Amino acid sequence: MNNFTFYSPTYFAFGKETENQAGQYVRQFGGSKVLLHYGGGSVIRSGLLDRVKKSLDNAQIPFVELGGVKPNPRSGLVYEGIDLCRKENVDFILAVGGGSTIDSAKAIAAGTVYDGDFWDFYSGKPIEKALPVGTILTIAAAGSEGSPDSVITKEEGMLKRGASGNAIRPKFSILNPELTQTLPAYQTAAGITDIMAHLYERYLTNTKEVEVTDRLIEALLLTMVHEGPRVIADPDNYEARANIMWAGMMAHNNSCGVGRSQDWNSHNIEHELSALYDCAHGAGLAITMPAVFSYVMDHDVMRFAKVAVRVWGCQMDFDHPEVTAKAGIEAFKTFLKAIGMPLTFAEIGAKEEDIPKLVDTLCNGNGGNGSISGFVTLNEDDCTKIYKMML
Amino acid sequence: MNNFTFYSPTYFAFGKETENQAGQYVRQFGGSKVLLHYGGGSVIRSGLLDRVKKSLDNAQIPFVELGGVKPNPRSGLVYEGIDLCRKENVDFILAVGGGSTIDSAKAIAAGTVYDGDFWDFYSGKPIEKALPVGTILTIAAAGSEGSPDSVITKEEGMLKRGASGNAIRPKFSILNPELTQTLPAYQTAAGITDIMAHLYERYLTNTKEVEVTDRLIEALLLTMVHEGPRVIADPDNYEARANIMWAGMMAHNNSCGVGRSQDWNSHNIEHELSALYDCAHGAGLAITMPAVFSYVMDHDVMRFAKVAVRVWGCQMDFDHPEVTAKAGIEAFKTFLKAIGMPLTFAEIGAKEEDIPKLVDTLCNGNGGNGSISGFVTLNEDDCTKIYKMML
Repeated sequence: MNNFTFYSPTYFAFGKETENQAGQYVRQFGGSKVLLHYGGGSVIRSGLLDRVKKSLDNAQIPFVELGGVKPNPRSGLVYEGIDLCRKENVDFILAVGGGSTIDSAKAIAAGTVYDGDFWDFYSGKPIEKALPVGTILTIAAAGSEGSPDSVITKEEGMLKRGASGNAIRPKFSILNPELTQTLPAYQTAAGITDIMAHLYERYLTNTKEVEVTDRLIEALLLTMVHEGPRVIADPDNYEARANIMWAGMMAHNNSCGVGRSQDWNSHNIEHELSALYDCAHGAGLAITMPAVFSYVMDHDVMRFAKVAVRVWGCQMDFDHPEVTAKAGIEAFKTFLKAIGMPLTFAEIGAKEEDIPKLVDTLCNGNGGNGSISGFVTLNEDDCTKIYKMML
Repeated sequence: MNNFTFYSPTYFAFGKETENQAGQYVRQFGGSKVLLHYGGGSVIRSGLLDRVKKSLDNAQIPFVELGGVKPNPRSGLVYEGIDLCRKENVDFILAVGGGSTIDSAKAIAAGTVYDGDFWDFYSGKPIEKALPVGTILTIAAAGSEGSPDSVITKEEGMLKRGASGNAIRPKFSILNPELTQTLPAYQTAAGITDIMAHLYERYLTNTKEVEVTDRLIEALLLTMVHEGPRVIADPDNYEARANIMWAGMMAHNNSCGVGRSQDWNSHNIEHELSALYDCAHGAGLAITMPAVFSYVMDHDVMRFAKVAVRVWGCQMDFDHPEVTAKAGIEAFKTFLKAIGMPLTFAEIGAKEEDIPKLVDTLCNGNGGNGSISGFVTLNEDDCTKIYKMML
């Protein structure tokens, strides 16, 4: 096991009607004037935003609003948020939504107290301070509610890049599984896929003998295998929603990823897809992961055989472990299809002729030098082959 | 799943030689004068205490010392620590040792800033403030390095009682698996047993459909089943030590216990044993758990069958699930014996004639009303039978 540090100080309030405590938590964590940040549509229609406003009113906390966050959140709205926070002397950002809204809120939080361009943080500069952020989560997926991470897309060039820092970890996150019950099935499934991707990215490691984190990752994958089809079949199943929601946080606060190298090549390869085609991140991952796994499987057949046996219930072929390893990848594809996820380029409107551009941005954009590194280092030729496997 | 809150803000530094960063972390978390609290013997002999002192010196942090913590830590030393902290204007407590030392440090931390008797906290008063505590862990067992809990024994009447509060959560905990390599095998095994007890106490729930936390608990139990015998056979196995150490923290910071009722009857029944006979807490648990599990098994046979299949690798007897459930308890006993733990009263010097006294203190001491509650409510008659099963 590698040396590591682990720090996850976010306060989680989980369960029914917990969004009504938003005002109380903002006050507890030092907020006196709030930017209420959200997307649109469902948060308003469902009455959630009104309940949150009422909670802030009850706690006598004034707020300004900035809606309009889109999936794959954009830099333009971040700049707008930064201006608004400065003008209004906001000292706390409350995100109401999914990973996109939370990531946008984190970017605004860091940018507001920084003299330069907030994009510096998404180009490698460490985030050292930020306004405090709280979240009210409406989709179990990104894990941003308990992570130090944020991913933003810059309109100019459609560059999708990440930043990270303890300063942008949420001070509190309110997780009410009821809020996810009205999600369209496709979004629920994309969220499930994103959670499983966070687990697989950590599972694919070159660090030896990390039984505890292997087992924890498998536990969360098994939870998704059990609960995913249940929630797709029965969207109102609170218990299934609750299990998925806690698994989503645990999958990404890194308690199951410490002390080991991690992959993240599937995420990097997918980011180019959702940046260019604006598909749901989870849907892009559903297409990407099986291709990547098949391509890199030979690097460590026994690791893929292990997840096949322990998570997918495959019988171990002791004479031909590669058969078991492949069966695990096939089982994952079958699962993804069953919950309604796409498996091919065409299903998200991606085009074969874009592959050279995708590969170039992936391997050379933002200071890259012709390859991406992770479980296996992949050069432009590798990435081209992987994108072609998704056709 | 029940509504819950989860908060685990401790900063963990894990890995080789991390104890040399102690001074830097004390400073980072606001300490300017330290009480260095420890047991004795091995911490001094191994040179650990000297390394920690050097680290404090390097960070220019003055300290006073209080050694002498014993297993099942006593109130007498806590009073002494409180007096010393007040006299010396200590503002940070650094515990170097195992659960006993950390629990003693937590009690001193709460007592120093409280006008009344610190024992009030161990009689039910909530802990609202305390001096900050840091830890350098030397045995994977109690989980106190990442928990808000402390257990102290009051000499008068040998009452062993717990207190809890976020104020006594360690600000940082340094976990170096190397420090556990010199432990006698018996203490290593007792630690493994304690960790497994923290998992079983959470596994035995009356809350339905908590798949995510069931799976996480099973993951950590499976880790112990894999690593326990490895570390007993090969005490210098760093990887096994590291997996056990992280599992020990995760087993008790409650990330795998949220949203569900928990048991803790085995702990309560055991506490009377270690209070009266001063046995290792883990050893007492090895004797207690199989008896408790066998006694309460009929309350939820399928839960015991589940852990038997998923953790102990038993084949499910679909016609007679109780056979599988029993096989899981037997497998646990076999495991405990294999790592060198006792299974009977005689092995820890406990006596049948003491049972009435044990039961009376358990069920009626400290304000009890003739029973203890958990997975199953147990009255004096139940507890008498359970203690007799340990003979």
